[in-house]
Amino acid sequence: MWVCSTLWRVRTAARQWRRLLPASGCHGPAASSYSASAEPARVRALVYGHHGDPAKVVELKNLELAAVGGSDVHVKMLAAPINPSDINMIQGNYGLLPELPAVGGNEGVAQVVAVGSNVTGLKPGDWVIPANAGLGTWRTEAVFSEEALIQVPSDIPLQSAATLGVNPCTAYRMLMDFEQLQPGHAPATACSQLCRWEKLHRAAAAVSVSPLGLQVQLAGTLQVFSWDDHQVTESQWPVQAKTRRGGTMVTYGGMAKQPVIASVSLLIFKDLKLRGFWLSQWKKDHSPDQFKELILTLCDLIRRDQLTAPACSQVPLQDYQSALEASMKPFMSSKQILTM
Amino acid sequence: MWVCSTLWRVRTAARQWRRLLPASGCHGPAASSYSASAEPARVRALVYGHHGDPAKVVELKNLELAAVGGSDVHVKMLAAPINPSDINMIQGNYGLLPELPAVGGNEGVAQVVAVGSNVTGLKPGDWVIPANAGLGTWRTEAVFSEEALIQVPSDIPLQSAATLGVNPCTAYRMLMDFEQLQPGHAPATACSQLCRWEKLHRAAAAVSVSPLGLQVQLAGTLQVFSWDDHQVTESQWPVQAKTRRGGTMVTYGGMAKQPVIASVSLLIFKDLKLRGFWLSQWKKDHSPDQFKELILTLCDLIRRDQLTAPACSQVPLQDYQSALEASMKPFMSSKQILTM
Repeated sequence: MWVCSTLWRVRTAARQWRRLLPASGCHGPAASSYSASAEPARVRALVYGHHGDPAKVVELKNLELAAVGGSDVHVKMLAAPINPSDINMIQGNYGLLPELPAVGGNEGVAQVVAVGSNVTGLKPGDWVIPANAGLGTWRTEAVFSEEALIQVPSDIPLQSAATLGVNPCTAYRMLMDFEQLQPGHAPATACSQLCRWEKLHRAAAAVSVSPLGLQVQLAGTLQVFSWDDHQVTESQWPVQAKTRRGGTMVTYGGMAKQPVIASVSLLIFKDLKLRGFWLSQWKKDHSPDQFKELILTLCDLIRRDQLTAPACSQVPLQDYQSALEASMKPFMSSKQILTM
Repeated sequence: MWVCSTLWRVRTAARQWRRLLPASGCHGPAASSYSASAEPARVRALVYGHHGDPAKVVELKNLELAAVGGSDVHVKMLAAPINPSDINMIQGNYGLLPELPAVGGNEGVAQVVAVGSNVTGLKPGDWVIPANAGLGTWRTEAVFSEEALIQVPSDIPLQSAATLGVNPCTAYRMLMDFEQLQPGHAPATACSQLCRWEKLHRAAAAVSVSPLGLQVQLAGTLQVFSWDDHQVTESQWPVQAKTRRGGTMVTYGGMAKQPVIASVSLLIFKDLKLRGFWLSQWKKDHSPDQFKELILTLCDLIRRDQLTAPACSQVPLQDYQSALEASMKPFMSSKQILTM
């Protein structure tokens, strides 16, 4: 019997994982609302039972949907990206790992198919995204608890909705929470690892060495760095970090576990501040309503064309092998998005 | 003719340097008020004409005092410490260097001998310290402009007054300006490179590897580091910096120009903040009255026995060679203070 869970879900009820049952395995005690139909539809999911090379350990499996309880929501996944953290998690190189076997994917957008009798905040047709990582989004359908989902407007582009919950949120908070930016600077343009907000400041320079590597965001007095793949030495820092007084350099990601190397003269004589940002901690420190407010703010920016999705390649779920391979290629500039 | 000046004086009038005249050199146009006495006293000073090994380039010279102008103050130096920055400056290894020849020393306490007719804030007998670095304190007497001096109470120990203007100020601001410390935690005990405020927090640990090397101050959520001589790797960090969330690590000094190496996981997952502090910048950002207020606050702590001078060795000015040598010995725990 498949029982998937994760060490790092925060507010997602554990019981949601027990609804993932393999079509060919032993079945749970309750037939799902879906499988009770005349001809049970196959729920397909990208599952891995061991950590390793994603191209080898990830398999497309047929699973059976669990029953929809009173507080549950039956959703049809629409699109789900392949993020570097998904790859690291499958490889076993991520700080927090799910119990195995697990369904891959932590981001995505789904459409509500049916809701339990106690669900008041969602209705069939609504679009939803995961409230937290760990849901396993690489599948065609799922039953989740209502609290594990956040509604998003369905009038934004599918790709934007599918990639809304992690990088744009991280970028927005990094831009808003560390320095006072000037009025009139509007964020714009999301890119693969973190949003590049090229219009934020006319003098800002956005550098993207690689979607898996260093990304630099300069805006106002803020410098946003990713140390994902490289040890970033001072020579790679933007010139603004070395010359302007009082800036803040914010590190996020850090999946390569490489240190920050900072000149003491910049800290002492230029009042450079080194900080870090972790969206999961921000969520812990803020209410679900504040996170929903953040999502709506980002959707508003999307509607005003001030935030756009990264360059994406949509790949049907069954072609996951090529999508996984493409997502791991260095200097790949297009985010792979699985469509169901 | 001796014309001493410095690149990094901030509020000290340039003319003060022109009052340093060698007794054997060409004299200035005006006889000083001191040299006008029946038997002109020798003004002795530790002077260096070239950068290099302090033991070789520093010489005890006889100089002539310049005239006391209307806004000037004639002082007798009482005591002046030998700080690592003084040594670095003589060696030519400091970021900001005076024009040569120059009188050594940037800190010290002096007693007012006479004042010009326009001086209203000081009177004979008052104790004064330099308002900024660059005065050249290793001499028996001098004429400075009133604005270059700050009065200190004469009821505090001589050693405390002589070492008050740099390290205690730096330590106090580092402790007060970066984190909210708990009420009732009173700073105490100055040590050689930076004050150790051992009573500040009962749970705090103060570590002093060497007066010229690493010094660690843990107090509340604040960690204060000196990277003066070492490249401080994470293994040398206090355990609090690795386990407690939301602390601030403040770097000062940085004369060894070694970088700070920080784990991204501490920045991201522990919300560690890396900052720097530079007293000269603080002075630029604050008024002279605010600096005077800081000095008086520190004097009050000294009177309440909550701040004490570092371990010191008083050495007569003429024995400067042994004092210079002692100050450069590694793991020397006693600060050398020249007495005049």
